[in-house]
Amino acid sequence: MPEPIATPDEINTFLEAFPEGVPWTVNHVDADAVTIELPERWVALRPGGSVSGPTLMMLADSGGYATVLGYVGLHALSVTSSLSIEFLRRPWPGAMIAVSRPLKLGRSLVVANVEIYSAGRDELVAHSTVTYSMALVTPG
Amino acid sequence: MPEPIATPDEINTFLEAFPEGVPWTVNHVDADAVTIELPERWVALRPGGSVSGPTLMMLADSGGYATVLGYVGLHALSVTSSLSIEFLRRPWPGAMIAVSRPLKLGRSLVVANVEIYSAGRDELVAHSTVTYSMALVTPG
Amino acid sequence: MPEPIATPDEINTFLEAFPEGVPWTVNHVDADAVTIELPERWVALRPGGSVSGPTLMMLADSGGYATVLGYVGLHALSVTSSLSIEFLRRPWPGAMIAVSRPLKLGRSLVVANVEIYSAGRDELVAHSTVTYSMALVTPG
Amino acid sequence: MPEPIATPDEINTFLEAFPEGVPWTVNHVDADAVTIELPERWVALRPGGSVSGPTLMMLADSGGYATVLGYVGLHALSVTSSLSIEFLRRPWPGAMIAVSRPLKLGRSLVVANVEIYSAGRDELVAHSTVTYSMALVTPG
Repeated sequence: MPEPIATPDEINTFLEAFPEGVPWTVNHVDADAVTIELPERWVALRPGGSVSGPTLMMLADSGGYATVLGYVGLHALSVTSSLSIEFLRRPWPGAMIAVSRPLKLGRSLVVANVEIYSAGRDELVAHSTVTYSMALVTPG
Repeated sequence: MPEPIATPDEINTFLEAFPEGVPWTVNHVDADAVTIELPERWVALRPGGSVSGPTLMMLADSGGYATVLGYVGLHALSVTSSLSIEFLRRPWPGAMIAVSRPLKLGRSLVVANVEIYSAGRDELVAHSTVTYSMALVTPG
Repeated sequence: MPEPIATPDEINTFLEAFPEGVPWTVNHVDADAVTIELPERWVALRPGGSVSGPTLMMLADSGGYATVLGYVGLHALSVTSSLSIEFLRRPWPGAMIAVSRPLKLGRSLVVANVEIYSAGRDELVAHSTVTYSMALVTPG
Repeated sequence: MPEPIATPDEINTFLEAFPEGVPWTVNHVDADAVTIELPERWVALRPGGSVSGPTLMMLADSGGYATVLGYVGLHALSVTSSLSIEFLRRPWPGAMIAVSRPLKLGRSLVVANVEIYSAGRDELVAHSTVTYSMALVTPG
């Protein structure tokens, strides 16, 4: 079991300093998982009231990044190298939660299993696996 | 080889009627692939000038949807059931192109292979596989 | 939470009737997951004593199939439609365990999250997501 | 476009020296792709005459490895880090072909797009994306 190396407050303070902002915040981090929340005002809605696929994919990627921040280091250089996501059921309109469990915290690759829920609901909306490459990647 | 069942103009006219709009347009469709373009003004930039991961994921998903529109039917009911993407190299800032090849056009599943490029560049920026489920999916 | 619709004994008896045999057996099934085991004599070893990648992929696919058998029905017609796997750490030589959790039990698609361990070890060896298509698929 | 750094004969001679043997051989390699073949006698059949899923997954993984051998180096240390595969249509019984295109030949990751066909047939049987990690991975 990994030990978290930063608290939610420390991660959120770090994220607030991003010039372009980040729409999500970290709710919780422990030895098992880091939990992030996307508030309702940032959830892009589709006609009919559902949540858009790109919003869910952004949230999955953010869960992977929160895993790097919470278990590897706030200033670790990393880029997403791959992401797979299965859309399981239609989300409810409103805030979304992502629970990201580190599967591997390696020197070159970090792999996280991200489960996405509608806030306050038990049913899994989407399941994602995200891999971050822990190195500065240059073009070419 | 599949035959396209709609022209770019027919697909673009169909997309323009979406109440919330669609940021991309279809450039080309033939027996091999459908090509879509995301203009520069819609490309969300990261600090340093690169293109954000969620923009590339949205474009991959859109390429899959364009495959449904171009080879199955404009009014086919479909939802993304899964998407996997590998980020290969840093995009150049500016318009992005997705070339989506239908791998399977089944009654229940449509699978597309989507390659993403920076407009005017030959190097592959991202590679994605998108599966659409051809049925109205209800929650639960 | 799904209710299992078959016991390990019922599933194992069903599998024993396969003319070509099946190298794994079901250990346990409850509302959360179905657990299968591949005994040591079937584990194809690589030089150096590790377990081969194709053995782990076969086990992941088998975990997905056990999910269909345990939660949908012994005689359900199904084929694997996609599988993704992340290899996380080198397995120990010997028997392997796969724990498969149903993520979606839909009419047309069944999605399972499969975790693979070396028997008697806590560290995750591989993580896989398997999708089964619940219909008789014909060529073309 | 990458330049191949080994001929089919050089790769096949290298593979023949493996103590446990390799069931496939390299047919062709050029700047676009490396093509490997699994002869009919090694294709594990399912009842009814189709080719088993694990055989197709082994072939996809082998296509990724052939990409490392053909474009990076015969003695490069590498392990599969992830593999995703979509099963598109039922294979015909008999020899199988995998065409593997390098998508990225990075210092730490090699990504290949592998298309699997029945020998002598044009229809795609399976599509896979394979990532190799270019470093000696140690447990845990």
